[in-house]
Amino acid sequence: MNLLIINGPNLNLLGKRETSIYGSESFEDYFNKLVEEFKADNLVYYQSNSEGDLIDKLHSEGYKTDGIIINAGAYTHTSLAIADAISAIESPVIEVHISNVHKREEFRHKSFLSAVCKGVIAGFGLDSYRLAIEALKRS
Amino acid sequence: MNLLIINGPNLNLLGKRETSIYGSESFEDYFNKLVEEFKADNLVYYQSNSEGDLIDKLHSEGYKTDGIIINAGAYTHTSLAIADAISAIESPVIEVHISNVHKREEFRHKSFLSAVCKGVIAGFGLDSYRLAIEALKRS
Amino acid sequence: MNLLIINGPNLNLLGKRETSIYGSESFEDYFNKLVEEFKADNLVYYQSNSEGDLIDKLHSEGYKTDGIIINAGAYTHTSLAIADAISAIESPVIEVHISNVHKREEFRHKSFLSAVCKGVIAGFGLDSYRLAIEALKRS
Amino acid sequence: MNLLIINGPNLNLLGKRETSIYGSESFEDYFNKLVEEFKADNLVYYQSNSEGDLIDKLHSEGYKTDGIIINAGAYTHTSLAIADAISAIESPVIEVHISNVHKREEFRHKSFLSAVCKGVIAGFGLDSYRLAIEALKRS
Amino acid sequence: MNLLIINGPNLNLLGKRETSIYGSESFEDYFNKLVEEFKADNLVYYQSNSEGDLIDKLHSEGYKTDGIIINAGAYTHTSLAIADAISAIESPVIEVHISNVHKREEFRHKSFLSAVCKGVIAGFGLDSYRLAIEALKRS
Amino acid sequence: MNLLIINGPNLNLLGKRETSIYGSESFEDYFNKLVEEFKADNLVYYQSNSEGDLIDKLHSEGYKTDGIIINAGAYTHTSLAIADAISAIESPVIEVHISNVHKREEFRHKSFLSAVCKGVIAGFGLDSYRLAIEALKRS
Amino acid sequence: MNLLIINGPNLNLLGKRETSIYGSESFEDYFNKLVEEFKADNLVYYQSNSEGDLIDKLHSEGYKTDGIIINAGAYTHTSLAIADAISAIESPVIEVHISNVHKREEFRHKSFLSAVCKGVIAGFGLDSYRLAIEALKRS
Amino acid sequence: MNLLIINGPNLNLLGKRETSIYGSESFEDYFNKLVEEFKADNLVYYQSNSEGDLIDKLHSEGYKTDGIIINAGAYTHTSLAIADAISAIESPVIEVHISNVHKREEFRHKSFLSAVCKGVIAGFGLDSYRLAIEALKRS
Amino acid sequence: MNLLIINGPNLNLLGKRETSIYGSESFEDYFNKLVEEFKADNLVYYQSNSEGDLIDKLHSEGYKTDGIIINAGAYTHTSLAIADAISAIESPVIEVHISNVHKREEFRHKSFLSAVCKGVIAGFGLDSYRLAIEALKRS
Amino acid sequence: MNLLIINGPNLNLLGKRETSIYGSESFEDYFNKLVEEFKADNLVYYQSNSEGDLIDKLHSEGYKTDGIIINAGAYTHTSLAIADAISAIESPVIEVHISNVHKREEFRHKSFLSAVCKGVIAGFGLDSYRLAIEALKRS
Amino acid sequence: MNLLIINGPNLNLLGKRETSIYGSESFEDYFNKLVEEFKADNLVYYQSNSEGDLIDKLHSEGYKTDGIIINAGAYTHTSLAIADAISAIESPVIEVHISNVHKREEFRHKSFLSAVCKGVIAGFGLDSYRLAIEALKRS
Amino acid sequence: MNLLIINGPNLNLLGKRETSIYGSESFEDYFNKLVEEFKADNLVYYQSNSEGDLIDKLHSEGYKTDGIIINAGAYTHTSLAIADAISAIESPVIEVHISNVHKREEFRHKSFLSAVCKGVIAGFGLDSYRLAIEALKRS
Repeated sequence: MNLLIINGPNLNLLGKRETSIYGSESFEDYFNKLVEEFKADNLVYYQSNSEGDLIDKLHSEGYKTDGIIINAGAYTHTSLAIADAISAIESPVIEVHISNVHKREEFRHKSFLSAVCKGVIAGFGLDSYRLAIEALKRS
Repeated sequence: MNLLIINGPNLNLLGKRETSIYGSESFEDYFNKLVEEFKADNLVYYQSNSEGDLIDKLHSEGYKTDGIIINAGAYTHTSLAIADAISAIESPVIEVHISNVHKREEFRHKSFLSAVCKGVIAGFGLDSYRLAIEALKRS
Repeated sequence: MNLLIINGPNLNLLGKRETSIYGSESFEDYFNKLVEEFKADNLVYYQSNSEGDLIDKLHSEGYKTDGIIINAGAYTHTSLAIADAISAIESPVIEVHISNVHKREEFRHKSFLSAVCKGVIAGFGLDSYRLAIEALKRS
Repeated sequence: MNLLIINGPNLNLLGKRETSIYGSESFEDYFNKLVEEFKADNLVYYQSNSEGDLIDKLHSEGYKTDGIIINAGAYTHTSLAIADAISAIESPVIEVHISNVHKREEFRHKSFLSAVCKGVIAGFGLDSYRLAIEALKRS
Repeated sequence: MNLLIINGPNLNLLGKRETSIYGSESFEDYFNKLVEEFKADNLVYYQSNSEGDLIDKLHSEGYKTDGIIINAGAYTHTSLAIADAISAIESPVIEVHISNVHKREEFRHKSFLSAVCKGVIAGFGLDSYRLAIEALKRS
Repeated sequence: MNLLIINGPNLNLLGKRETSIYGSESFEDYFNKLVEEFKADNLVYYQSNSEGDLIDKLHSEGYKTDGIIINAGAYTHTSLAIADAISAIESPVIEVHISNVHKREEFRHKSFLSAVCKGVIAGFGLDSYRLAIEALKRS
Repeated sequence: MNLLIINGPNLNLLGKRETSIYGSESFEDYFNKLVEEFKADNLVYYQSNSEGDLIDKLHSEGYKTDGIIINAGAYTHTSLAIADAISAIESPVIEVHISNVHKREEFRHKSFLSAVCKGVIAGFGLDSYRLAIEALKRS
Repeated sequence: MNLLIINGPNLNLLGKRETSIYGSESFEDYFNKLVEEFKADNLVYYQSNSEGDLIDKLHSEGYKTDGIIINAGAYTHTSLAIADAISAIESPVIEVHISNVHKREEFRHKSFLSAVCKGVIAGFGLDSYRLAIEALKRS
Repeated sequence: MNLLIINGPNLNLLGKRETSIYGSESFEDYFNKLVEEFKADNLVYYQSNSEGDLIDKLHSEGYKTDGIIINAGAYTHTSLAIADAISAIESPVIEVHISNVHKREEFRHKSFLSAVCKGVIAGFGLDSYRLAIEALKRS
Repeated sequence: MNLLIINGPNLNLLGKRETSIYGSESFEDYFNKLVEEFKADNLVYYQSNSEGDLIDKLHSEGYKTDGIIINAGAYTHTSLAIADAISAIESPVIEVHISNVHKREEFRHKSFLSAVCKGVIAGFGLDSYRLAIEALKRS
Repeated sequence: MNLLIINGPNLNLLGKRETSIYGSESFEDYFNKLVEEFKADNLVYYQSNSEGDLIDKLHSEGYKTDGIIINAGAYTHTSLAIADAISAIESPVIEVHISNVHKREEFRHKSFLSAVCKGVIAGFGLDSYRLAIEALKRS
Repeated sequence: MNLLIINGPNLNLLGKRETSIYGSESFEDYFNKLVEEFKADNLVYYQSNSEGDLIDKLHSEGYKTDGIIINAGAYTHTSLAIADAISAIESPVIEVHISNVHKREEFRHKSFLSAVCKGVIAGFGLDSYRLAIEALKRS
C-alpha cells in the first residue's frame, strides 16, 4: 500500500518542544521505525507549517495514494480549508493526535477535520500513527 | 493480559438496530472473533443499558484488570458519573466508537469521557475495538 | 392492538406528588379506566425510575408491540440513551406529558425524545394518554 | 359545541406545497370530513397569511367560542403578538402541528404559543386537528 | 430523630479514590463515628451508583423520615429526575459535598438539586455531613 | 401641536384583557380625558393589530405630525420593520409602555424600537401616555 | 419572460428615506428604466409593508411567473413565514439588497430567506435588481 | 411632597463631561430651576461616586421620603446591590437617564434597576428628571 | 478563637427588609445570641454597604483572626475584588447565605466568592452563621 | 477595464471535486469563455491555496487594477487577514460564491469578507463571476 | 511632567499577597525607586480599595495632571463606572498590569478600561509602570 | 542583545494603508530609527503575510535570539498555530500592537497569542515597538 503521513505546524519540533507532552523522540526517528516495521508498504512523510502547502499536498496525493494519516496540529482547530481539501479528495484520511487533546485546553477539543475524516485516533503517543496505519491496512 | 470490553446502552441491539450506521454483525459474533485472534489474552465482555451497572462494573474490575475498552453509547455524552468512575479507578481505559461520531448529530460531538480516558478511537466500525486492544497491548 | 404505556421517574407518585400540577388521581386508577374503555385492545402498563430499565423495556417490547406511549418524566430532558432506544426499535412511539411542560421551568421545554417519536401530546392531564391511544389506533 | 379552527401562513397551500411533508389532501377537503364526523358540533374554519388578521379573529371569537384550535404555521416561532392575543382571550386554545416540528429545522423547535395554550398536539398529520377537537370536547 | 444519609455514584470508593481530594477515610468508618456521636438519633446510610435506585430510596423514605442528607456525586450536576424526586417528597433534604465543588471543574459548579433542597453545605470534608445533621436537628 | 398616539396589537382589549396588569379602563375612555386635558392641541388616536398597518400609518403621518407616541405592544420585541419605519420618518417618536416591561417575562426586556425613538417612558400605567405628551410639548 | 419584483416594508420610501444609505432615486423611477431596458420581458412591480400581503403575492404569482426578485426589507431578518412561502412556491426567487447589509447593524447580517432562495445579490445599489434580472434570464 | 433625586457616578461632571451627549448645563443649575418650578414640594439632591454611599442614602431616606428619582449612571448596569436596596425600601423609585441609553453601547442596554423600580424614563435630556417628578406627583 | 462575621450590602436592614425571605429578627439580636452561645470565643461583627470597606476589613483582620464568616449580599455575585481580597489573606473564610440563593433569581446562583472560600453554607436562615462557626471551630 | 479574479483554496479542483455542488466545468474552461465574452476588457485569473499568497496578490494588484472578484473558498469564513487586506487596498472588491452558501453548513453562513467588500453575489453557479464583472463595469 | 499612579483594590498588599504571582517587593519601595529614576518629573501615588474613591481621584486630577497610570486590579474587569470616569476626564490614561492577565483566569481577560485608555501594558512585573511612564513622556 | 521584530499580514502596507489608524510612516523608516537608537544591540526585522512563514521564522530564530517582538496583525485573533510556535520556542516573546485594538472591532479584542507571550504592549503607535525593546533589555 502507498501511505502518506502528513504533519502540520510545529510538529517538526517534535522531540524538542514541550517534551512532557509530546515525548523526546523526533518524528524522523519514529518514522524510520515505522518504515522498518511496514516494509511491505510504501510510507511517505511530509511536514509543513503552512496551511496552503498542506492543502497542496492533499490535492496532489489525494487521488492516487491508498491512505493518508494527518496530524494537522493547531490547524485541526482552525482550518476549514484543510477540511474542505480532505472532503474533496478520494483517498481515505485518518486524523491522529499524539496527545489526548481532550485533556488539554478547551480550544483543542473542537476539530474541523473529524467530520470529514474516516476516523480519529488520539492519545497514544507516537503509537497513534502506527494504529492508524493498521486501521488503513485493514479497511 | 486481562482485558475488559464494556458496552453501554443500546449496543446490545448491534446488528439489529440502524444497520446503515452500525453494520449488521452482532457484537457477540464479533467478540468471538476477537477472542480467537487474541488467544493469549483473557478477554471479557460486559453490556448494560444501566448507567449504575456500568459504574459498578468499572469499580469491581478497575483495580485488577489490565485494561478496559469502553463504548458508553449515548452515556458518552451525558454521564459525568461514568467519567468520575473512570478517573477513580486504576486500570487504563480507552474510549471507542463504532461510527465516526463527528459525522453525526451535534450532541454526539461532546464526550464527557475523553478527558479521563487514556485515548480515543472512533470511526473504524467494529475494528475500533481491535485497534484499542492493540493499543493496550503496546502501552 | 397491543399497546404499551411506559411511565418514567417519579410518575409512580402520581396522585400523591404535587397534586396542584398533576391532579390527585393515581395512574393505576386511571389505567384501569383506560383498560375498560379500550376493551378490544390489549393495554399494558410499565413504570420504572431507572433509565436502564426503561431502555430494556423499549428493547424487549419495541419489535412486537403495535404502539408505545411514553411519558419519560425528567428523563425526557436529559436522556439521549432513551432517545437512541426509541429510534432503534420498530414500534411507533408517542411522547406524552400530563402537564403543559412549556408553562413550566425552562429546562422542561427541551425534549430529547420528540425528534425520534412519531408525535407529541402535552397538557391535557391524564387525558393525554387516551388521546395518544386514539392516535395510535388511527394511524 | 362551537369550535374554531385557525390556520396561519402558507397553510392555504396544503395539498399543493411540499407534499412529502404535509400530504396531498387540501385542508378544505379534510375540514369537510371533520364537519361530517362532528355533526353535533358547530365547526368553523378560518385561514389567513396575515399576523394581524389572525389576532383580529382571536379577539372577535375568543370571548364566545367554546374552543379554538390553532396551527399558526411559521408565526408559531416568531409571533409574540399572537401569543399575547391567546393569553388575552377566554376560550381555551390548543396548538396543533401537522408535521412533528421537532424532526425539522432547529428554528421550528421553539414555540411562542405553547406556554399560553392549554396543550400541544404535533406530528399526527391532519389527524392532529381531530385529536384536538376530541381534547376540547372532553375537557 | 430518624435521619437518612444518601450517597450517590462513586462515593462507595471514598478513602480509596482520589484521596488528595476526598481524604483517606472510608465513609463507613466515618458513619460509625456519626452514629456514636448522635446516639439519641436513628441514623441510616444508603449508597448506590444507580440514579433509579436513589430515586426509589427517596420515594420509600421521603414521606416518613425526619430528614435526608444527600450527596448525589456527579448526579448532582446531571439529574433532573433526582431533583424531581426531592421536590415530590415531604422530608426536608440537605445537599452536601465533601469538597468545595466551586474550586473544581466548571461542570461541577451547577447543581440541579440546590433549588429543591432546603439548604447546601459544601467544602468541609466529611464534616459537611455532621453539620447537615446539626442543621436538621435545629430546624 | 398635532400629536398622534399609535397603539399596536392587543391594546384594543385594554380594560378587558388581563386587568391585573393593564387596569380596567379602556383606552378610548382614557384618550377622551387626554383630549380634554390638552384642548389646545390636536390629538389623534390609531390602533391596529397589523404590523403593516402600523408602518403605513407611520409613513403617512410621520412627515407632517409634530410628534408620535407609540406603544407597539408585542411588536416592540419582534419588529425590525417598525423600527425601520420610525427611523425613516421625520417626526419625533416616543416609545411608551403601560406596565413596567422589565418586571415581566425576559422576552419583553428587549425593544427593537428604543434605539430609534427619541426616548422611552414605561411603567406609569396609562399615565405613561400623558407624560409622553408633555415630553413632546417641551422638546 | 414574466418577472416579478417584490419590495417589502419601508421600500416605498426609497429616494425619500435615509438617502445616504439608499440614494435619492425613487423605486418607481428606477423601475421605469428597467422596463425600458428589458422591453422584451414582462416586468411587474409590487410593494407592501404587510408580511401577509407579501405572502399572498408570492402564493398568487409563484406558480406561474418565470422568476421573482425579492427585497423583503426588515422582514428578511425576522420572517420565517415569508421564507416558508418562498420554499412552497415553484418560481425561482432571488434575494436582493440595495445596501451591503453586512456593513450595517449586526441584526441585518442574518437572513431567513437566503437558504430558500436560489441566490443572493447585495450591495450594488439599485443595480442589484438589474443583476438579478440578468441572473434569472441566464438560468 | 418630599422628593429625593439621587445621581450616581460621574454625574457630578455634568456640563463638563462629554457635552455632546449630556449637554453643557451643570446639574446644580438645573436642580435650582426644578426647585423653583416645584416650590410647593421639598426637593433634595444627593450625588456620590460610591456604590456604598448610594445604598446608605437609599436606606436612610427610603422609609420616609415620598418618592426617589435615581440616575445611577454606570452602576445601573452593574450593581445588584443598589437593586437590592431599591427593592428593600418602601418609597417608590423611578429610574431616569438623560440620554437614550439604547442608542449607546450594548452594555448600557441592560439595567439591573428597571425590574425593581416603579418605572423608567430615558432620553429626554435633563427633562427626564422633571417628567419623573410629575409622574411621582400624579401617582 | 477569634472569629469575625462580615455582612455586606443591605444586610443592615435584616428584620426590616423583605421579611418573608429573611425573617424578622435583626442581625444584632441574633449576634447577641451567638455571643452568648459561644462565650469561650471572641466574636466580632462588622457590616458595610461599601465594597471598598469590606475589602479594607478583610485586609486588616485577615492575617490575625482565626476565621472569617462572610455574607457578602449582592456583592457575592458581582465582586471580583472581594474574591481577590479573600484569596490574598490567610485566615480561613466561609461563605454563608441566609436564604437558599439557588431558589431565587438566576443571577444569585453564581458566586464569585465560593471558589476562594473554604466552604459554603446556604439556606438555613440565620442558623447558617452558627453552622459556620461550628465548622471553623472543628477545622 | 483591468479586472482580476482571485480564487482561494480548493477551487483549483473545480470540475473534479464534489461535482454535485460545484458542477463539472473546470474554472479554466469557464474563464476562457469569460475572456471571450469580455474581449474589450483585460481579465486576469489567479488561484492559490495559501492565505499568504492571496494577501500578497491583493496587495500587489489592489492599487492598480480596476476591480477584483474574490471567491476565497473556506478562507471566507476564517480569514481576518484577507479581510484586512481587502479593506487596506483601493480597488473595489466583490465577494462571489458558486453555491448558495446559506443552503450549506452553518459555518459557511458567516463571512469575514462581506463587510469589507463592495457587494456579494452568491448562488448562481459559475455565472456568479460574470454577474460580478457586469457589476464592476457598471459601477 | 506631573504624573499620577493609581492602584486599585488589593494592590496595597503587594509584596505580601500571592508573591509567586506579584513578587515580594512592596509598591511603596518600588515607587521610591521610580521617584529617584524620574527626578525631573513630579510623580504622585494613590491607592484605594474603593471604586468610588478611585473615581473621585480621577475626577479631581484628571483635568490637570499630565498623565495617569492606572492598575485598577479586579475593578478592571467589573467597573463600567471607572471606565466612564476615564473617558470623561482629559488627561491621557494608561492601563497597566503587573502580571500577564491573559495567562490567568478567564474572567481576567476582559477589561472594561482598555477601550477608553490610550494604551495597555501588561505582564512585565512592576516594570510595567516604568514603561508606562516612558510612554507618557514620549507621547 | 540580538532582537528580532516580526510583523504579520498587511503590516508591509504601513504608511500606505488606513493612515488614520496606523499613521503615515513606513515600518522600514521607523525601523531604521530604532537601529540608530539601539546601536549597541543587533536588531533584525522580518515581515510576511503567510502564517506558515511566520511559524518557520519563530522556529529558526526562537532558540538563539535574545528576544522577539511580534505584531501578528490579524493572525493575532485567529492563529493557534502561531501561539503554539511561541510556546514551543525558548526566546521570550512580546506581543505588540500599533493601535489600541480594544477601541476597534469586537473580533480584535481576543488574542490567541497573549497567553503564551511574556507581556503585551498596545496602543502607543509605532512607539509600542520601542517600549517592547526596552522591556526586553530590562528583563
